[in-house]
Amino acid sequence: MSPPRSSEGYLYDASGPSCRGLPTEAVVQGSLHTRSSYDVVVIGAGFAGLVAARDVALDRNLRVLLLEARDRIGGRTWVAKAWGEDFEMGGTYVHWCQPHVFGELHRHGLEKDLKTSAGTTATEYINYKPKEKKDTQRVSDVAKYNAMLVDVAEKFFSIDDMTPRQVMPYPHEPSRNQPWQRYDHMSAQDRLDQLDIPQDEKDMFSAHVSSFGSGPASETAWVDTLRWYALGGYGFPTMYDAAASFKIGNGGTTNLCRHILSEYNGDVVMNKQVTSLTQADGSGALIKCVDGSNFTARRVICTIPLNCLGDIKFDPPLSIAKQEAVKRGHMNIGEKYHFSMDEVQGNWFANTSPHGGADFVFGLKDHDGTQSSIKQGTYAMCFGKNGKLADPTNYELVISEYKKLQPEGRVKGYLSHTWSKDPYAKGAWFCASPNMTKHLAVLQRPHGRILMANADWANGWRGFIDGAIEQGHRAAAMVKASLASEQTAKIAML
Amino acid sequence: MSPPRSSEGYLYDASGPSCRGLPTEAVVQGSLHTRSSYDVVVIGAGFAGLVAARDVALDRNLRVLLLEARDRIGGRTWVAKAWGEDFEMGGTYVHWCQPHVFGELHRHGLEKDLKTSAGTTATEYINYKPKEKKDTQRVSDVAKYNAMLVDVAEKFFSIDDMTPRQVMPYPHEPSRNQPWQRYDHMSAQDRLDQLDIPQDEKDMFSAHVSSFGSGPASETAWVDTLRWYALGGYGFPTMYDAAASFKIGNGGTTNLCRHILSEYNGDVVMNKQVTSLTQADGSGALIKCVDGSNFTARRVICTIPLNCLGDIKFDPPLSIAKQEAVKRGHMNIGEKYHFSMDEVQGNWFANTSPHGGADFVFGLKDHDGTQSSIKQGTYAMCFGKNGKLADPTNYELVISEYKKLQPEGRVKGYLSHTWSKDPYAKGAWFCASPNMTKHLAVLQRPHGRILMANADWANGWRGFIDGAIEQGHRAAAMVKASLASEQTAKIAML
Repeated sequence: MSPPRSSEGYLYDASGPSCRGLPTEAVVQGSLHTRSSYDVVVIGAGFAGLVAARDVALDRNLRVLLLEARDRIGGRTWVAKAWGEDFEMGGTYVHWCQPHVFGELHRHGLEKDLKTSAGTTATEYINYKPKEKKDTQRVSDVAKYNAMLVDVAEKFFSIDDMTPRQVMPYPHEPSRNQPWQRYDHMSAQDRLDQLDIPQDEKDMFSAHVSSFGSGPASETAWVDTLRWYALGGYGFPTMYDAAASFKIGNGGTTNLCRHILSEYNGDVVMNKQVTSLTQADGSGALIKCVDGSNFTARRVICTIPLNCLGDIKFDPPLSIAKQEAVKRGHMNIGEKYHFSMDEVQGNWFANTSPHGGADFVFGLKDHDGTQSSIKQGTYAMCFGKNGKLADPTNYELVISEYKKLQPEGRVKGYLSHTWSKDPYAKGAWFCASPNMTKHLAVLQRPHGRILMANADWANGWRGFIDGAIEQGHRAAAMVKASLASEQTAKIAML
Repeated sequence: MSPPRSSEGYLYDASGPSCRGLPTEAVVQGSLHTRSSYDVVVIGAGFAGLVAARDVALDRNLRVLLLEARDRIGGRTWVAKAWGEDFEMGGTYVHWCQPHVFGELHRHGLEKDLKTSAGTTATEYINYKPKEKKDTQRVSDVAKYNAMLVDVAEKFFSIDDMTPRQVMPYPHEPSRNQPWQRYDHMSAQDRLDQLDIPQDEKDMFSAHVSSFGSGPASETAWVDTLRWYALGGYGFPTMYDAAASFKIGNGGTTNLCRHILSEYNGDVVMNKQVTSLTQADGSGALIKCVDGSNFTARRVICTIPLNCLGDIKFDPPLSIAKQEAVKRGHMNIGEKYHFSMDEVQGNWFANTSPHGGADFVFGLKDHDGTQSSIKQGTYAMCFGKNGKLADPTNYELVISEYKKLQPEGRVKGYLSHTWSKDPYAKGAWFCASPNMTKHLAVLQRPHGRILMANADWANGWRGFIDGAIEQGHRAAAMVKASLASEQTAKIAML
């Protein structure tokens, strides 16, 4: 039985029909019967919302509704099916150093499905667009290049006679007083410019930094790259292990989402976009949807991403500080493409920033889907630059830009989720631009009876699945505690 | 108000009264009323038992009893109070790379209390008992010594042209097919003897290995030291970060235990030692206690440590494979001592194995309890050798052995938990001797309606708090699933 089809995603197939909308196990049916009033309404069925709803509904005394604008669960993570393979269309990576997602995997016995992305763990050659050269060049000595990155990283993340460990000793606790906070204003490029190293090394490292947020080092906060480095054990090899090596096999992130949903005892409404959240009478919140329907709730957990919060009308409005954060948004507005190639390719990784050269910021050979051998061809994964390549139907452009990263590739098709055009995401995974630290605590604060939960303002693995789950747990615990204390107060008044 | 007093632990105070039994928040009262029959009885209120009982009892339909032989919770972890400070008398270390305990800390908002042990993270000098020298010597160049350890470690953990990553790519999944399994028979000393490095480096590294299991490298399984190395990111600095740097401040492990207990909705019975577990009639288990009292349960979660399982009479008996595992036990039979010194000491770390020299295997300067400055003196933490120093009242011997590690120390008192003599532990944290891998899967298997859960056979951070919590979650999920399927079968038969 083939899975249902989401309206999302795009498939280009050189030898067959191309189409919008892809089959995925992430499409789920809503509940048959729903109420108009709940104890808790959770908006958004991404990881934060799924975990929050599940956690709250484990308390059988609370009536919970999970409300989702899309036709599928998972938010910025989902698995589409094409050519007999599973493709992660969004957020992908997990690791046992990401405590919240690893705990969730373990809860469902899915840690046994972990597998590596062959392309990232044992790269044989690296492509790179050097300054003032027209074409992508191949780095001749990968071991030397990698050693250079490790060496520059240690200098890049050390500052004012402090080691990276001393600058950010507690990467999971941004609100604890730590030296890194005083460098919040600095871009990654600013820090590179301070180093006394050859310009060539600066350029190569700067290109590498573009993989943190699909944008140039000059727009990427230095402290956000340091956060990855610290979370990943203060070293390049361990960082890539922790941040970008292991994916979930056997159904991927969507399988994990479905496991969490299977534990959830409340109601679900799909395809229902929220337009406003009103807290008027002091007893709860009114949730208005685009089709005119309403729900009321004693508490709301709002998991809408930072770049979309401005689309919701809050009454009373969000605090000035929150509005400022929403207005800034985050800087990672990239697209994600999976390419399928006829030929078997060696492992590669390609950068083009900071000097342009392609509308893709970076790309890499990916594992071969569910196949254990690479005999049948090659898949590659590439990330589009902010605002570029947002039209996946323009296959001539897409393929020609791909070839700038990987000239020998013979593309037979691709899959894409153009996240910049996604109305419920307006971007990819969170990445900070300079001066964004102050917004973090602001976004974590409740807005009256509305709790805000999203990976975009997580404490640890911000922008990762792990951060989404962290915030989902947190919001559920806060809502349960707040409803319990309300209950205690009620009993005391009797 | 001073906390209640456990019968456990010993305080020696040169300037005041010494005593057996120490004040601790880990002493808790049992329930006022209990039943004779439960759905689930959890034996042991260490981390595995606390988490298992909490998880099961969150399902309000199940009646749960937590049964503990001691007068306190925490098992091999607890915090005693002395001289106005908190002391971890057993298992101590946590980290965000230990996913299960970090999730639990986060659940209770305790990650903000993490603090480092100053002594281990910035050692200024290292003491070492060299071969054929009578006294402990000071390593003159700590940076050089540390670089030597890093270098030897890379050789030690690489084998047959494989890097440590290739030998153990999935450190959290011992049952997944990986190259390390073929080296299960090898001791750490065996591997050292294979290396083409100076004997002096072998001896120093061998001494270091003794800190994994408070015993000589010749009795320590090479694969178990590799497990620490892999879990800690395949490097010495990251391994020590992950395994032995961060403790919980502000009440320590006991505070975390109390938080878990506060979520638990079932009954608690303290001071009740289980003597036998009988599954006779096919419907459940009979739990007999040393005072003649009994409980029945549909399922039992038994969290008794490996080295004590032989003290319980199982009827029907454990499988031959389980009996073999129990008979072997694990090799870490050490004691733990905290010393208080008048003088302010620099940071130090001391080894004595493999050449003896002291009845302590290793020791280090510890942080100054809850004090933020070191102006008021120094605390040090030392681990006794198997079977030695098990009498804490023999203060002359204890202090003279301490001085072999740290000759200039002026001891004004010490605290001790002599784990080897503890009838409910019979040892310290788990460490494997060669040829123990096969026992792991055996111990994880249920014995009829009895689930076995203990850090001693955890998949990942075996022997750590993290491993205990991992196994607690696992046992609770298995018990709930098994009771739910029984329920489904019952309904189908109606």
